[in-house]
Amino acid sequence: MAVGPDTLPELKPVDGFRIGVASAGIKKPGRRDIVLMELCEGATVAGVFTKNAFCAAPVVLSKKHLAASSIRYLLVNTGNANAGTGEQGMRDATACCEALAERTGVSVEAVLPFSTGVIGEPLPVAKIVGALEAAKSDLSEDNWLNAAHGIMTTDTRAKAGCEQFEHEGKTVTLTGISKGAGMIMPNMATMLGYVATDAEVDQAQLQAWLTAATEQSFNRITVDGDTSTNDSCILAATGRSGVKVESSGEAADKFVSALNRLMLHLAQSIVRDGEGATKFVEVRVEKSASVREALDVAYTIAHSPLVKTALYASDPNWGRILACVGRAGVENLDLNAIEIYLNDVCIVEKGGRAASYTEEQGQAVMNGEEILIHVVLNRGDVCEAVWTTDLSTDYVHINADYRS
Amino acid sequence: MAVGPDTLPELKPVDGFRIGVASAGIKKPGRRDIVLMELCEGATVAGVFTKNAFCAAPVVLSKKHLAASSIRYLLVNTGNANAGTGEQGMRDATACCEALAERTGVSVEAVLPFSTGVIGEPLPVAKIVGALEAAKSDLSEDNWLNAAHGIMTTDTRAKAGCEQFEHEGKTVTLTGISKGAGMIMPNMATMLGYVATDAEVDQAQLQAWLTAATEQSFNRITVDGDTSTNDSCILAATGRSGVKVESSGEAADKFVSALNRLMLHLAQSIVRDGEGATKFVEVRVEKSASVREALDVAYTIAHSPLVKTALYASDPNWGRILACVGRAGVENLDLNAIEIYLNDVCIVEKGGRAASYTEEQGQAVMNGEEILIHVVLNRGDVCEAVWTTDLSTDYVHINADYRS
Repeated sequence: MAVGPDTLPELKPVDGFRIGVASAGIKKPGRRDIVLMELCEGATVAGVFTKNAFCAAPVVLSKKHLAASSIRYLLVNTGNANAGTGEQGMRDATACCEALAERTGVSVEAVLPFSTGVIGEPLPVAKIVGALEAAKSDLSEDNWLNAAHGIMTTDTRAKAGCEQFEHEGKTVTLTGISKGAGMIMPNMATMLGYVATDAEVDQAQLQAWLTAATEQSFNRITVDGDTSTNDSCILAATGRSGVKVESSGEAADKFVSALNRLMLHLAQSIVRDGEGATKFVEVRVEKSASVREALDVAYTIAHSPLVKTALYASDPNWGRILACVGRAGVENLDLNAIEIYLNDVCIVEKGGRAASYTEEQGQAVMNGEEILIHVVLNRGDVCEAVWTTDLSTDYVHINADYRS
Repeated sequence: MAVGPDTLPELKPVDGFRIGVASAGIKKPGRRDIVLMELCEGATVAGVFTKNAFCAAPVVLSKKHLAASSIRYLLVNTGNANAGTGEQGMRDATACCEALAERTGVSVEAVLPFSTGVIGEPLPVAKIVGALEAAKSDLSEDNWLNAAHGIMTTDTRAKAGCEQFEHEGKTVTLTGISKGAGMIMPNMATMLGYVATDAEVDQAQLQAWLTAATEQSFNRITVDGDTSTNDSCILAATGRSGVKVESSGEAADKFVSALNRLMLHLAQSIVRDGEGATKFVEVRVEKSASVREALDVAYTIAHSPLVKTALYASDPNWGRILACVGRAGVENLDLNAIEIYLNDVCIVEKGGRAASYTEEQGQAVMNGEEILIHVVLNRGDVCEAVWTTDLSTDYVHINADYRS
């Protein structure tokens, strides 16, 4: 169950970025569970990682390697998160990096490890190492679709996108994949994103743009309010297009715009495939006094089990939305100034139900699969949006039944 | 569906506090939907109310009357919350108070109004006023059980408790009732509590003790993390026992202890009857550096849909609990110092699964109806607890189907 059409755009190869997929038999024999990504020499790499204090061993190691070295390989396994595994987990993640480094003639620090799957089980190092040769011989620039499938866990569909722009007669490509179906699934932990481009961008600038893009994409989505131990998003730039993107100017504008579109698409694809999702919901808070209060209101609505069950029921239950705005902790809120809309239908104004509102109008909006909950605070000029799903009986089934 | 035995203790009458119940036909003909409580002259009254900025008209009015006057009547209706009703809601609540004041010869300010039920519908003032005489003639000190039933909305069972203590040869009684089955149900809005005692306590002291008791009871429970527009809790002291409770001393110790026990019982009864609940769960955070961080960790666990669905499935999924501790926002958390227990079973230590832990031990705890999730942070000496339920498919059904 997912919201919207299950179609992927053509995933253009990125010159200098090769991908190999293999089966290590971590959870199920024959399932693609290893994705190896190879960057050409001279590529720059940026990363953002979970803020969960209990971050997994591969996250700790990836951060360390990223700070110490230029990066040549990304090694992803599914089926095991290598999280909650203490010191052994660090040794296991290191062992995988070492094995790959040996086989490719790079330093251990040139490898970033990523794991997603069950928490608290020892990483099956031998299985992963045993699949490295197969992944290596599969390396190809045309493997994006296989990679999108290879990093899936409870995802019901592959998630990928592609953006291109022209600059001074040359074409720049950005291609990316993501996975995740709850914001966290510590059993099949979590959100991963990989974007590669053939633009040339220096590392510090790449990191700044990735951080900014993440803030407006992966950090604006929620399925169940949880944050995983393994969330990671990587942006790699090979430079092979011959277009150097400086910190500002026309190329920078085009690049940032393409990156933001791609990242938002990858993030929203995760929400559309949210566990048990039957609705894709944007919560937009406008005319707010600050980003903080806009997000407080938006997330209070997006996380409310009562709003989410009403969405599941296609019930235009404006009282539940209004109560969320009221408890979001915004100081000196002027109730009479607030307007709340479902799509274009005004449901609340002057502290109560809008005079013009009819239940039929609300019902018509709620019957749709894509819904906008639009709150106008009328106390400033900040606008922020977050994206979420409804809360269905299937969500409970998926998360209650998963380990049994 | 509710957790634990459905038995009520004997509800001793409180001298000077009479209760009348009537049917106004607000939602269903014949259903008891009006509860009138009368306090003897000279009684003191304290109240705590929702912090939701969108608080309902009766909450606004009750706060105003409580500040302005001594109180003689509490008037409760179910079936309609008189919330999200703007100026008309204020006029309607006032009209009900006026009608009762006229019929009883007290000032309008001596009446506190309370409403619980559907949000955003006009209060049926004529129906409520029409039932006042019947409620008045039903006034009796022996009506606590009827009152407990009279304030129910989606509750599946009545909630009430009673405490007594002896002081200098005299008996002091505290009797109370509560209602609520989600922390918020804006359609059938919400949590109400009424406690009366025959102790003599001055108003400022009564307010201080009610506020403190609420902090450790009604403010420590969560079903779905929502806060309603109508939450109210009232404590009335008639003084008729002849025991004057000063701010400190033996009588104060006994009184505060009895009040805290009663309030905790009333609050926990709400959790036990939580919508769709199959488990009653205490989340206790010990050896914390501050109350704030203890509650941040406890509520992050108690609100996590992933933890709650695992509880529903009786799944000892310690990875989900561990991930919550990690994302609770506690600064400089030393992962290796943390221990997590299910009842007495240590499941996490030294940053990972406890060496002694077996899945069978965890399963045995999770199979029970009453579960303790016990987190030891080992960074201070503060201990706090909150109480919650699991998240079941029935929760979704109840909240998705309610208005349809």
